[in-house]
Amino acid sequence: MIQPSTLPGMMELLPEDQMVFDTIKRRIEDVFIKNAFFSIDTPAIEKLDVLLSKGGGETSKQVYRIDSSKKNQGLRFDLTVPLAKYVSMYMQDLAFPFRRYQIAKVYRGERNQKGRYKEFYQCDIDIIGNEKLSLYNDAEIVKCMYEALKSIDVPDFEFQFNNRKILNGYFSYLGIEDFESCLRIIDKLDKIGIDNVKEELSKLNLDDEKIDSILNFLKIDGTNLEIIEKLESLNIDNELFVCGLEELKFVYDDILSLGVSPDNIKINLSITRGLDYYTGSVFETFFKEYREIGSICSGGRYDSLANNFTKSKLPGVGMSIGLTRLFYQLQELNLVKGQQTNFDCIIIPMKGYEKNAVKLMNDLRSSSVRCMSYLEDDKLKKKFNYADKLSVKYVIIIGQDEIEQNKFTLRNMENGNQELLELNQIIEKLK
Amino acid sequence: MIQPSTLPGMMELLPEDQMVFDTIKRRIEDVFIKNAFFSIDTPAIEKLDVLLSKGGGETSKQVYRIDSSKKNQGLRFDLTVPLAKYVSMYMQDLAFPFRRYQIAKVYRGERNQKGRYKEFYQCDIDIIGNEKLSLYNDAEIVKCMYEALKSIDVPDFEFQFNNRKILNGYFSYLGIEDFESCLRIIDKLDKIGIDNVKEELSKLNLDDEKIDSILNFLKIDGTNLEIIEKLESLNIDNELFVCGLEELKFVYDDILSLGVSPDNIKINLSITRGLDYYTGSVFETFFKEYREIGSICSGGRYDSLANNFTKSKLPGVGMSIGLTRLFYQLQELNLVKGQQTNFDCIIIPMKGYEKNAVKLMNDLRSSSVRCMSYLEDDKLKKKFNYADKLSVKYVIIIGQDEIEQNKFTLRNMENGNQELLELNQIIEKLK
Repeated sequence: MIQPSTLPGMMELLPEDQMVFDTIKRRIEDVFIKNAFFSIDTPAIEKLDVLLSKGGGETSKQVYRIDSSKKNQGLRFDLTVPLAKYVSMYMQDLAFPFRRYQIAKVYRGERNQKGRYKEFYQCDIDIIGNEKLSLYNDAEIVKCMYEALKSIDVPDFEFQFNNRKILNGYFSYLGIEDFESCLRIIDKLDKIGIDNVKEELSKLNLDDEKIDSILNFLKIDGTNLEIIEKLESLNIDNELFVCGLEELKFVYDDILSLGVSPDNIKINLSITRGLDYYTGSVFETFFKEYREIGSICSGGRYDSLANNFTKSKLPGVGMSIGLTRLFYQLQELNLVKGQQTNFDCIIIPMKGYEKNAVKLMNDLRSSSVRCMSYLEDDKLKKKFNYADKLSVKYVIIIGQDEIEQNKFTLRNMENGNQELLELNQIIEKLK
Repeated sequence: MIQPSTLPGMMELLPEDQMVFDTIKRRIEDVFIKNAFFSIDTPAIEKLDVLLSKGGGETSKQVYRIDSSKKNQGLRFDLTVPLAKYVSMYMQDLAFPFRRYQIAKVYRGERNQKGRYKEFYQCDIDIIGNEKLSLYNDAEIVKCMYEALKSIDVPDFEFQFNNRKILNGYFSYLGIEDFESCLRIIDKLDKIGIDNVKEELSKLNLDDEKIDSILNFLKIDGTNLEIIEKLESLNIDNELFVCGLEELKFVYDDILSLGVSPDNIKINLSITRGLDYYTGSVFETFFKEYREIGSICSGGRYDSLANNFTKSKLPGVGMSIGLTRLFYQLQELNLVKGQQTNFDCIIIPMKGYEKNAVKLMNDLRSSSVRCMSYLEDDKLKKKFNYADKLSVKYVIIIGQDEIEQNKFTLRNMENGNQELLELNQIIEKLK
């Protein structure tokens, strides 16, 4: 006898929670489809050299490698590397801009930690251009994620966004060369606070004046329009900065004209997305009242999706929801609600009336009522316990009385009310 | 630079095929949901001792094992073992009969072979009882798969079914003790033919009379009712046989009363399902005109789902569609059709009318028209090529003329017809 158990760090839900999870996942997918993104379904196992094409780093240590004779294989740790592979491989067959979504599990052998998962769903959308890609796409991505988050009924949220060219242009204007280290430090502002950012910046051998300039720059705040005005009034004479500011304004305007409420979008100059991947727009998304749980949907613009795989320049923009972690957090905050779609009723026959229950089940199902019959040879009490355990709202009872009158007893399990009804009345009520 | 490539034995589709695959997968899932099955989503990685709890055999050689520090982990090779684990672990929380579905990828390190996949989707439904489970469930499973297959528009098919107790009872009646070896040989009838079955049976040290009896038994044919009559008229005095025949009749009747057409169900006494797992009803499903591709949906009744994990007796019945292989076969036979759901139209603005295109896209999407705008700064020809490549039926053109008249040009890409229409006329047309 073997002790049945699931590996730590894997989310495995009971059916009622799974139903909610599935509903959320499907609503997100429906929004992606409605917004004219195409699905791809790459394998979970890839060649290691493909997976690690961007070189080492933290992630490579977390890759699940396949054993023995399949040494050169591993499990994907994100959906971006497989996308880069896919686009490079099938470039001739794809129409650009290529709009793809993928909702799938990825694998990271992180150490065990509450709320961190080794297997988790990512919901990715990206638009990839061949050689060039208009800025309209940056706004499209945000609009699509806006609809996706609205569709799953989460707490009020805010896209915070920025443009890396603004920061890099400003660094360049200040005469700072090591953009990346600066970005990485600023990215931690939320976690470590302004004093620690100051201290870390000083370790980069920046003089106090420059550090103060950076900190003052990061403090620029107000409404979105005020921030834009303040940035303009700085009159920074740097091409990259000016370009970044133009892009920021264009994308912001376009996001609004796509119908995203101004309440849900906020320019934040300290958003950098630590990784060196992004080159223009950068986005993070926070619940307004639960900022401490971190970004629930992030992404941005990159100049080149796949320069490890192809010489073609493939600029793109994308965002991703970490669905497993999001679901965990919603559960922790007791914010999972309403998204459930249980089935409509259970038919309970008295002993000897099983075949009548089967017939009724057929009739109800062909009228699109989602139902089942309890056909085990059990006591009535046990049958009702089953309906209770599944939290079904209605039970239909069939016995001699019902058959004689060609009616059925419909019992509302929430308040115990019973009615004797004809088939079409029941269908009416359950639909 | 790394050569981008996908591992052999992995199905990776282009977007237009993927759309068809996704549609099929979703339709199957919708039928499972409608039939009141609950989804579970177990992790792809499990402990090796859980995966291999049933002991060695062919499958254990094909398990993808995780490398190095995670030596005790591997990828699931089916969805039944994870189900057994799940039910054993959460028995206290589940309501029995537990009706679960799972549509997910499984992994088998088979050798490379055309049409065989190392990663493939299984679509499983099972109903698990605690200690007992009525025969009604055998028919429910068939009915659900019937609807699933009907929903995806495959060629005409036939469930072939049998009951193992009939065969085992007959062997017992003949005084044969090694049931399993006999079943395994008979299971190969379709592949190796009657003569080879005869030869293999003779290797089991059965005398000619018994072999002839078995072969004559397997030849029993006719309509379903004729087969049942012939079996009854044999007057076999064996408890197991009699029980099997009763079960067969009950399940057959119930399948019909659930609305499965008699044309789609056929008793076949040589169906055994080689594995020693099943104990009652056994099912295989064939395309009537393409029997050579083998069973597309198989399963049956088992006495005990999880006796490696728990002392509780968990009888169950289930069937499974191997979706990846089925899709491959439908493609090979050129039978994939009509299931596609592309988006409805692409909006193509003349240079300078991009913002009008964005506005129109918004308006159309809020009327549930699935559309996108082509907003790259390209020549008109390139924009139309894009629409061609995506096989979109309609293109909407916006330029000066259109804006002045507050109308839009709708072009049917199939016949080249163009009309100048108002927004609500376009919505009417595209919905």
